[in-house]
Amino acid sequence: MSDQLSLLPFDLMLAIYLIAIAAEAMSGALAAGRRDMDIFGVAVIAFVTALGGGTLRDVILGNYPIGWTQHPVYVYLVIAAGLLTTLVAPYLHHLRRAFLLLDALGLVAFSLIGCQVALLLGYPTVVVIMSGMLTGISGGILRDLLCNQVPVVFQRELYASVSLVVCALFLMFGAIGLPVDANSALCFAGGLSLRLLAIRHGWQLPTFSYHRRWD
Amino acid sequence: MSDQLSLLPFDLMLAIYLIAIAAEAMSGALAAGRRDMDIFGVAVIAFVTALGGGTLRDVILGNYPIGWTQHPVYVYLVIAAGLLTTLVAPYLHHLRRAFLLLDALGLVAFSLIGCQVALLLGYPTVVVIMSGMLTGISGGILRDLLCNQVPVVFQRELYASVSLVVCALFLMFGAIGLPVDANSALCFAGGLSLRLLAIRHGWQLPTFSYHRRWD
Amino acid sequence: MSDQLSLLPFDLMLAIYLIAIAAEAMSGALAAGRRDMDIFGVAVIAFVTALGGGTLRDVILGNYPIGWTQHPVYVYLVIAAGLLTTLVAPYLHHLRRAFLLLDALGLVAFSLIGCQVALLLGYPTVVVIMSGMLTGISGGILRDLLCNQVPVVFQRELYASVSLVVCALFLMFGAIGLPVDANSALCFAGGLSLRLLAIRHGWQLPTFSYHRRWD
Repeated sequence: MSDQLSLLPFDLMLAIYLIAIAAEAMSGALAAGRRDMDIFGVAVIAFVTALGGGTLRDVILGNYPIGWTQHPVYVYLVIAAGLLTTLVAPYLHHLRRAFLLLDALGLVAFSLIGCQVALLLGYPTVVVIMSGMLTGISGGILRDLLCNQVPVVFQRELYASVSLVVCALFLMFGAIGLPVDANSALCFAGGLSLRLLAIRHGWQLPTFSYHRRWD
Repeated sequence: MSDQLSLLPFDLMLAIYLIAIAAEAMSGALAAGRRDMDIFGVAVIAFVTALGGGTLRDVILGNYPIGWTQHPVYVYLVIAAGLLTTLVAPYLHHLRRAFLLLDALGLVAFSLIGCQVALLLGYPTVVVIMSGMLTGISGGILRDLLCNQVPVVFQRELYASVSLVVCALFLMFGAIGLPVDANSALCFAGGLSLRLLAIRHGWQLPTFSYHRRWD
Repeated sequence: MSDQLSLLPFDLMLAIYLIAIAAEAMSGALAAGRRDMDIFGVAVIAFVTALGGGTLRDVILGNYPIGWTQHPVYVYLVIAAGLLTTLVAPYLHHLRRAFLLLDALGLVAFSLIGCQVALLLGYPTVVVIMSGMLTGISGGILRDLLCNQVPVVFQRELYASVSLVVCALFLMFGAIGLPVDANSALCFAGGLSLRLLAIRHGWQLPTFSYHRRWD
């Protein structure tokens, strides 16, 4: 991570990243609770939700060693956040708005980090965008796989699309020469606004339903 | 990919490969439609079905960089094929036979390419065969995982077995000195015939049912 | 594998490893039978259950080439064990205790091997423990994913926790200077006892249930 944090002032970006993985870990813990898992399962799902997207990105891009293996503190943080969630869960629905905000923050932060990693490795544009989206949304997809449900990121309000928009904006602003700080700040603001507006107004992509049986 | 296309005349093999990934992308899009995903989910499932098998093979064999990251056109093609499917879906069942033919073509082409990749990397025979099968069938397995269903490749007419037969023939013919062009053409013809006959006559492997509960 | 077998006298450790992967392959075959898969599916699930955990570990740690690609005999063994299971399945419930013992042996052996691999690669402590657990439990998780069920390792008697305890003991005993032979033997005895006691007495971790809907 450390060398990929240059896209915003270091301390701010690191803080956002830590908040984001903690928020993702909490969403993983809640999903595990819906499947009545034991606390070990909670810790594993929290870990996979928070750090699985970055892991998948690093494996696909061949970016070894994988981030969290060099930063044990991330591992402790997400496991602690997951276990803490089991204690505070009865009160969490009061915090729904805060939680959605943190999750949106994470989505945007993960997406920007994923773009940056692929850019540093010299991959072509479409791979940079896919790396951003992979980092942004695949933790949630892995969480849903392990909890045996169809990934919600493809069925609800704009989520994966926010990641796409953030990545595309980041590359476009970069191409027209915007300094990286201003670029990141703009993408953050744009992505966050889009996600929050989508939640508020229930914006969704058109869905594709196909239930004809061929055989 | 480009360096793995030498097993048939280049243009023909590339054409077959492009048709194959487009056909796989379409099968992915239809599966996403059965889960009422949004168009973003359709694109993702199309991508994973078409290019996920090769990705998994490359990750397991340590064959970096992964194919599609160097050929953005493959990415555009499979996403376009997936999205196009949502438009033409109402008419697709008229094309069932053409679709099954393309899918069978893809199965055989993917299997031969997977063998070839592992051969070039110097892996032992059993790994070459597994690489061929991984490339041939795991895109469909990933598709079914993401759509939350038991992989159909293990429950219907001969499918995975066709991949195995193609890989085994390719290695055997190679071992007895058949030139690679003739070898590939023979394997294509054999694999395609076997798959189409299996569909026509409903050939299946014996299944294993075990429903005794121990506890 | 061969270079990771130094933690116990070589022949003994290898024998335990081979028994363990055969036992895991059998558990995979039975799970495939519960989904009425064909014998090809049985072979694939057996393979993934037995060797998938080590594969995932090697991919995440960047430990190429992956173990089984260099030892074809492991591949033949697990596929044979899987297929054999379909023949002896009607009699297997008489062997339930032997089977659970072999599975527990495998869990402990896999965990110790996973720790050792990460230690040799120089990863930090928390990664060593996670590598042990990944090797110990993720084959079973992949099996459950492919069979479309919530991973049982998070819902039954102590299982993943046994792996954690074994890994932690191994590192602790190593840190206080216990020779590696004695260390491994102790961890084996401890882990095996814990698992068998947990099965006998139904010891479970506390579970986390969360069924409140937010929306």
